[in-house]
Amino acid sequence: MLMTDIIEKKRDKLPLSDKEIEFFVSGVTDKSIPDYQISALLMAILLNGMDRRETLTLTALMAKSGDMLNLSDLPHTADKHSTGGVGDKTTLAVAPIAAALGCTVAKMSGRGLGFTGGTVDKLESITGYKTALETTEFKKIAKEYGMCVTGQSGNFAPADKRLYAIRDVTATVNSIPLIASSIMSKKLAAGAQTIVLDVKFGSGAFMKTAEDAEKLAREMVEIGNGAGRKTAAVITDMDVPLGFAIGNALEVEEAVRVLKGEGEEALTSLCVALAAKMYQISFGKTEEESISAAKKAIADGSAFKTLCAAVRAQGGDEKLLTGEHKFPEPAASLELLSPADGYITAMNSETVGKAAAMTGAGRERLDDSIDYSAGIILSKKYGDYVQKGERLATLYGESRRIRDARERLLGAYSIEESRPPKKPIVYKIIE
Amino acid sequence: MLMTDIIEKKRDKLPLSDKEIEFFVSGVTDKSIPDYQISALLMAILLNGMDRRETLTLTALMAKSGDMLNLSDLPHTADKHSTGGVGDKTTLAVAPIAAALGCTVAKMSGRGLGFTGGTVDKLESITGYKTALETTEFKKIAKEYGMCVTGQSGNFAPADKRLYAIRDVTATVNSIPLIASSIMSKKLAAGAQTIVLDVKFGSGAFMKTAEDAEKLAREMVEIGNGAGRKTAAVITDMDVPLGFAIGNALEVEEAVRVLKGEGEEALTSLCVALAAKMYQISFGKTEEESISAAKKAIADGSAFKTLCAAVRAQGGDEKLLTGEHKFPEPAASLELLSPADGYITAMNSETVGKAAAMTGAGRERLDDSIDYSAGIILSKKYGDYVQKGERLATLYGESRRIRDARERLLGAYSIEESRPPKKPIVYKIIE
Repeated sequence: MLMTDIIEKKRDKLPLSDKEIEFFVSGVTDKSIPDYQISALLMAILLNGMDRRETLTLTALMAKSGDMLNLSDLPHTADKHSTGGVGDKTTLAVAPIAAALGCTVAKMSGRGLGFTGGTVDKLESITGYKTALETTEFKKIAKEYGMCVTGQSGNFAPADKRLYAIRDVTATVNSIPLIASSIMSKKLAAGAQTIVLDVKFGSGAFMKTAEDAEKLAREMVEIGNGAGRKTAAVITDMDVPLGFAIGNALEVEEAVRVLKGEGEEALTSLCVALAAKMYQISFGKTEEESISAAKKAIADGSAFKTLCAAVRAQGGDEKLLTGEHKFPEPAASLELLSPADGYITAMNSETVGKAAAMTGAGRERLDDSIDYSAGIILSKKYGDYVQKGERLATLYGESRRIRDARERLLGAYSIEESRPPKKPIVYKIIE
Repeated sequence: MLMTDIIEKKRDKLPLSDKEIEFFVSGVTDKSIPDYQISALLMAILLNGMDRRETLTLTALMAKSGDMLNLSDLPHTADKHSTGGVGDKTTLAVAPIAAALGCTVAKMSGRGLGFTGGTVDKLESITGYKTALETTEFKKIAKEYGMCVTGQSGNFAPADKRLYAIRDVTATVNSIPLIASSIMSKKLAAGAQTIVLDVKFGSGAFMKTAEDAEKLAREMVEIGNGAGRKTAAVITDMDVPLGFAIGNALEVEEAVRVLKGEGEEALTSLCVALAAKMYQISFGKTEEESISAAKKAIADGSAFKTLCAAVRAQGGDEKLLTGEHKFPEPAASLELLSPADGYITAMNSETVGKAAAMTGAGRERLDDSIDYSAGIILSKKYGDYVQKGERLATLYGESRRIRDARERLLGAYSIEESRPPKKPIVYKIIE
């Protein structure tokens, strides 16, 4: 088989056979296919598409290109994945809610690049929390407490890793079959039987419109179900940041507020929706009973207790969660005041995210260090009325950094006379 | 400027600005742009196209990416280019006809890869013929004799060279703007004021249909005229090999027959058409007077004398052309006999070309050596009636090689009961 023939076929809009996709994925993995042939094929795929069978085959083969986590000895394994947003601390609340309902959330999570740290970075802001666990210990904690969130060990979907690195520098990221297969190959390798996807759209998300998010969600749900996993997707609005906190320790505190029933409304309803969906499809419940069960797990404190127990089991100081201990203080803080009277009619999430990264909450390169106490707490959000001079947000971190970040943050707001329409956080559910 | 932004624009079907094309060509030339980004852009160009301005800019910048031959001190410089075919010895006859009419054909020619050698290889079958000339000597001979055909010295259109190498292994050859800009960048760098293109279609040509050949021809003529060169294209049928001879010395002999007025009809009329077109647009003549002038240059022997003089000036033994000396004998010969009675209704040029390469007349890699005496002489061609056992062709070369080649050659013929339609060699002229 020749790679040029495969490129030619896709160039001419013909579907690739399973054998051809296998040749491609194995050549990507063992590096026998050079970058320039890969990028030519990726561009042809982006422009000419792939049908469902091609996408499913590509995903399954990329999943199998490296280690596959075997969670078959754990009951009701459920995973959750977000396509990424600003202030997205949902895993920290969703995992304990789903665990409290009987799911096993055994999750290996990557470190974050970009606006803020990833889930693992957020958890590392808890003193003592260990994110480098052996697989046996990881599974033991998950079995005992219903959840364990750790850093990635092992070599998952290396074919996807190489493809992604090439896509990133050849303008071939933006293809629904390529995005779907990239995400789902890692989810299939991660081993859970239930997969709930949080597919975001809006200014802070990769998909800018609800329609594109829905297309991507449908593609991923088909792939997951096609591969024998129970899969559903929740399409959510990321036009404004999620919750009030952006930053690592700040987001842990906000997740705790959700679990204590004191969370921001939109954030809480999203966490409930995601955890309920994991419970619903794992246990074959109805949507209504799942949502009330999730709300109950918050109301009766069982979800919060689950988080505290799991954090303790991973060596973390759970008193930081209960409030008996305090997170380290940031070096400085600064307020951003409103420059005008009016309604906040837009808050560009991407700009807010970049401002948060400037405070020290995010990293640009994987070896950059993170300031766990840095970040932004929003006081006012989309739809709120503010008066000139009223506080919009507070920035935390090194004083030099937060001065620059404040300027950037101001650019995120549009303040206008008329009240903007209300927008629900959960736009649609695909299953 | 970022290469990813340029790829993204073309991916999204937007035209690239001149500045962007300049960034691309200079990054291709100085190697600051990696292969994988180049191949992604090439695939996007192949699938989304380029408009006339983009193609013109790309061509002009690729031409300027290396040496530019300055022929401005020579009168009526005229170049001829063929898109490549089987048995194409036209340059050997066209150059002396045009030179006899007053054009200066100062031509640097590449070596051939594939079916047979290139023009330079054919000329090297003439004992003593030097193809490595200094530019001053090259121009001196061209000035004195009206023609000089030499090997390429200098670094012409290196950007095109790199692009072509990448296109060749990424299924991105087959794009009219890319083919046109590749050919024309080299023609612009080669310095002639008049450019006549022989664009072939059919089984032995890169373009399989007359329509595609015409599209390519129009694109190249627009580029040439747009760059200030007088450009025309002759679209010709390469569904059957050109003339009777395929092989290096064999083709020199056939070109001599054309110049002596004893050439095959189709081959002669093509050589006349090409040389006449060069004369016509160089001197602003009418088509009719140009064609009669070209025929006269054959009839009065002036074209043949020009070739002999130019060959002598380049150190070659012109007695091989006049017949006083003989070309070296091939090691062996074999006849291919007709397996049936009937008309030859098809002769796949590509297969004939491959059979010729098998005799030793062509090379697969640039460092392979060529057997100058090897090749094929066709006795019967498309449209001829043959009887079973009658000779179709004779193969020359090493006996082991020509046995295999004969088998391959037989596969080129279709012999059927009914007489096939006549097809003119020159299909259309674009100017």
